[in-house]
Amino acid sequence: MVNRHFFQSPAQSYSVKKLQEITGGKINNTNILDHVITDIATLETAKKSNIACFHNKKYNNDFANSHAGIIVTDREYDTPEHVLALLICDSPLYAMAQISNLFYATHIQPNISHHAVIADNATIGKNCNIAAGAVIGHHVHIGDNVTIGANSVIHDNVEIGHHTIIAANCVLSYCHIGAYCQIHAGAVIGSRGFGFAEKQGQYLDIPQLGGVTIGDHVEIGANCAIDRGTFQDTVIHHRVRLDNLVHIAHNVEIDQGTIMAGQSGIAGSTKIGKYVQIGGQAGISGHLHVGDLSKIAGKSGVLKNVAAKSELMGFPAIPIRQFLSAQKKLLQLIHHNFLKKKDR
Amino acid sequence: MVNRHFFQSPAQSYSVKKLQEITGGKINNTNILDHVITDIATLETAKKSNIACFHNKKYNNDFANSHAGIIVTDREYDTPEHVLALLICDSPLYAMAQISNLFYATHIQPNISHHAVIADNATIGKNCNIAAGAVIGHHVHIGDNVTIGANSVIHDNVEIGHHTIIAANCVLSYCHIGAYCQIHAGAVIGSRGFGFAEKQGQYLDIPQLGGVTIGDHVEIGANCAIDRGTFQDTVIHHRVRLDNLVHIAHNVEIDQGTIMAGQSGIAGSTKIGKYVQIGGQAGISGHLHVGDLSKIAGKSGVLKNVAAKSELMGFPAIPIRQFLSAQKKLLQLIHHNFLKKKDR
Amino acid sequence: MVNRHFFQSPAQSYSVKKLQEITGGKINNTNILDHVITDIATLETAKKSNIACFHNKKYNNDFANSHAGIIVTDREYDTPEHVLALLICDSPLYAMAQISNLFYATHIQPNISHHAVIADNATIGKNCNIAAGAVIGHHVHIGDNVTIGANSVIHDNVEIGHHTIIAANCVLSYCHIGAYCQIHAGAVIGSRGFGFAEKQGQYLDIPQLGGVTIGDHVEIGANCAIDRGTFQDTVIHHRVRLDNLVHIAHNVEIDQGTIMAGQSGIAGSTKIGKYVQIGGQAGISGHLHVGDLSKIAGKSGVLKNVAAKSELMGFPAIPIRQFLSAQKKLLQLIHHNFLKKKDR
Repeated sequence: MVNRHFFQSPAQSYSVKKLQEITGGKINNTNILDHVITDIATLETAKKSNIACFHNKKYNNDFANSHAGIIVTDREYDTPEHVLALLICDSPLYAMAQISNLFYATHIQPNISHHAVIADNATIGKNCNIAAGAVIGHHVHIGDNVTIGANSVIHDNVEIGHHTIIAANCVLSYCHIGAYCQIHAGAVIGSRGFGFAEKQGQYLDIPQLGGVTIGDHVEIGANCAIDRGTFQDTVIHHRVRLDNLVHIAHNVEIDQGTIMAGQSGIAGSTKIGKYVQIGGQAGISGHLHVGDLSKIAGKSGVLKNVAAKSELMGFPAIPIRQFLSAQKKLLQLIHHNFLKKKDR
Repeated sequence: MVNRHFFQSPAQSYSVKKLQEITGGKINNTNILDHVITDIATLETAKKSNIACFHNKKYNNDFANSHAGIIVTDREYDTPEHVLALLICDSPLYAMAQISNLFYATHIQPNISHHAVIADNATIGKNCNIAAGAVIGHHVHIGDNVTIGANSVIHDNVEIGHHTIIAANCVLSYCHIGAYCQIHAGAVIGSRGFGFAEKQGQYLDIPQLGGVTIGDHVEIGANCAIDRGTFQDTVIHHRVRLDNLVHIAHNVEIDQGTIMAGQSGIAGSTKIGKYVQIGGQAGISGHLHVGDLSKIAGKSGVLKNVAAKSELMGFPAIPIRQFLSAQKKLLQLIHHNFLKKKDR
Repeated sequence: MVNRHFFQSPAQSYSVKKLQEITGGKINNTNILDHVITDIATLETAKKSNIACFHNKKYNNDFANSHAGIIVTDREYDTPEHVLALLICDSPLYAMAQISNLFYATHIQPNISHHAVIADNATIGKNCNIAAGAVIGHHVHIGDNVTIGANSVIHDNVEIGHHTIIAANCVLSYCHIGAYCQIHAGAVIGSRGFGFAEKQGQYLDIPQLGGVTIGDHVEIGANCAIDRGTFQDTVIHHRVRLDNLVHIAHNVEIDQGTIMAGQSGIAGSTKIGKYVQIGGQAGISGHLHVGDLSKIAGKSGVLKNVAAKSELMGFPAIPIRQFLSAQKKLLQLIHHNFLKKKDR
């Protein structure tokens, strides 16, 4: 259930017709197009005035017994007994997300806190919210409808696109952030890449003279760290999604739509293709290329280039089937007490 | 030795009798109950006015040669030559912790910094310390004797129980924190869960409408990230202890007394039982259940449900014995040059 | 190419002679010692007024076709057609770093922001830059030419050596930081070590009464977490380099020149020798000793003491050759369908 301490009941209701229009779905009972939906709910808890979503066979029973007014599904199932109609959509989860965003839209309260410290020559767009303790440097350029959270630090010359949300306690330097991004609390973007030269036991910093370029609709998780490049930008393209505590080293490029789960990391100068999926705690070595649409299982370690559409697992990462089969053999070896017999 | 630059010598001394009462231990020489103990020390450095602890056979020699006034142990050893008496306790380490907390008690200095930014309608309990740069949102409720560190951000409606310590630069949103908790510096609690729906290469956020509920006596390490739930709270029960840089995804539930070491992580919707021990850098996949009292070795990756009292290791995690035995076989295989022979 | 939005073209030019002097290199054409170099560049993009570096055979072609005025190399190659001269240095990368630092020197703008909150009895050296929102505690001692980033928190009694840079949103407590260190954004140093005693399902904090001692020329990455010791300091010696999101537990000691890549971690009380290299996401268990000059591959997990100069990989970590050979055997086993045949 929605946590009512933090999220108020929706202020506005919507007709079934409106929800159909928004999702582009198909209603299997057009008599109820004027029925009013007041909130979203789970299959189990939904009432006649609610809409719920059925996208996982695991919840077959909840579906059959649901009292929801409308249920979003991906197929023309028989409408359960207590349900008024099904809203059939290609991607029920996506449709439900659309509806959920409708009922629980978040609105910026435009406000520049007088406890923020903003350089005179910074440019702030219209309808921004800049919270207390935020520090905005010289020549920073912030678009319209941007949120800068409390105690976040935006260093000189940084650019932030419109509708982007920077949560509290972030640090942004040497970076261009696109529009409609979400940077969660504690994220650090633009820190010095880990580059230095060695001579007789002494290390000398290699100046990191690139920045970080982040596209539109990018999500960066809490306490992530993204370094700026050495002699070129570290680049994160449109629609990339990084979970919490992800590490992106200098000169990395991540192409659009790629998803990285929590605590995964990419070493320096590696290029990740489009719509790659990288599991939690996985790591990709430096100076590699990972092809489009690849899937790297959680906890895996990639040490070689990866062809497009590969599915890898393990350390060093190998095709998932091989990995699982190797694990199985290994266990068989133990159970057969193999070597002992042989040594006899 | 105690770092005297940061920790002053104890202001107060205690009789052996007092230490016995506090720990519920047994003194093997009641003639010295009035002897005064002024400080704690190691077996090696302790003097007659100190108390030390012997809980590890590795330190047999230090025990035998110690000049401590009193030594806390778990058995009636012979009292070493230079020692006045032994204080015998079931759990010497716990007893020593009790004594150590006595000598090095930390006290809040109640103070609300005028450099903190506190919403008018926030409720602050008695004897709190709120440091400079802290930002406290609307309708925040803070109990008595709470510490809020410098530059920490407490968002609207958050509730914090009495005697809880929030260190510097934390970000708390959408959460209820219990009493007697310690949230270390840089921790982020209540950030958006990593939930979105996909349709034709576009991602759409699934609003995360749950919060985070944290019980009493919970410790959260530095730079941890704990996401709020999607449609229910992420829940961390009483006495859970998280080390640094731990990642807890949305909808996770961790039952009481569970311990997670540094850089471990739990993916979405997984339930962890009571008094589970999770080693450093270990990861638990999503939508699983890990039974009570299980032990997951460091660096392991759990991909299946775990029965209570299991002890697992490796990736995918298997029973520790099997894992170690598999490793052994593998090394034998190399040394026997096994396949070559067979292929002849 | 250098990101000109953030890094201005060098204000000063240098003669080839000057660059030779600074690097201690040898010019293979002394006729051009007065030639003026205005900037650094890559082999590919460099013009006659630029200096570039050739240190990797992969770039043989770029070297041969370069139009750079001067190229730093490690050997007396034939000078490419369009190049004026080679600057031959033992360590070209180090020499190039020296030159790069010359052209892109960073200068502190001494300034104490009136938005910083500084205790009256804190000591601040000459020419420091303390940014807005920084909070400096009682009896803090800061050397000359130190930078404290915006919203960083320096707790009571902390000491920071001269020329050290603390980036934004760091939290330092119970620590001595040496000179010429770089602490990147979001790093937490001196948090409570993860120490507690258990008795009948209750945990009790063991007071952590040590500090953190950090030597000179140490680099600590973004969002790292370094705990203070229990009864002794956690110690990080001169010239240690930690990448982002590294976890250092209490009582750890890391000797000089050791390098740890991103998301690696060290459990409590382990001692790491000099000039050890620890790869990304690697973990070292507690109470171990890792010998000087060892190399631990990324993602490896070390469970035993490590002799000096060892090269280990895997989990549990074994000599790299053994590890790779074990991986190979395992794959052979699958391909030979070994067990099936045997079972017939």
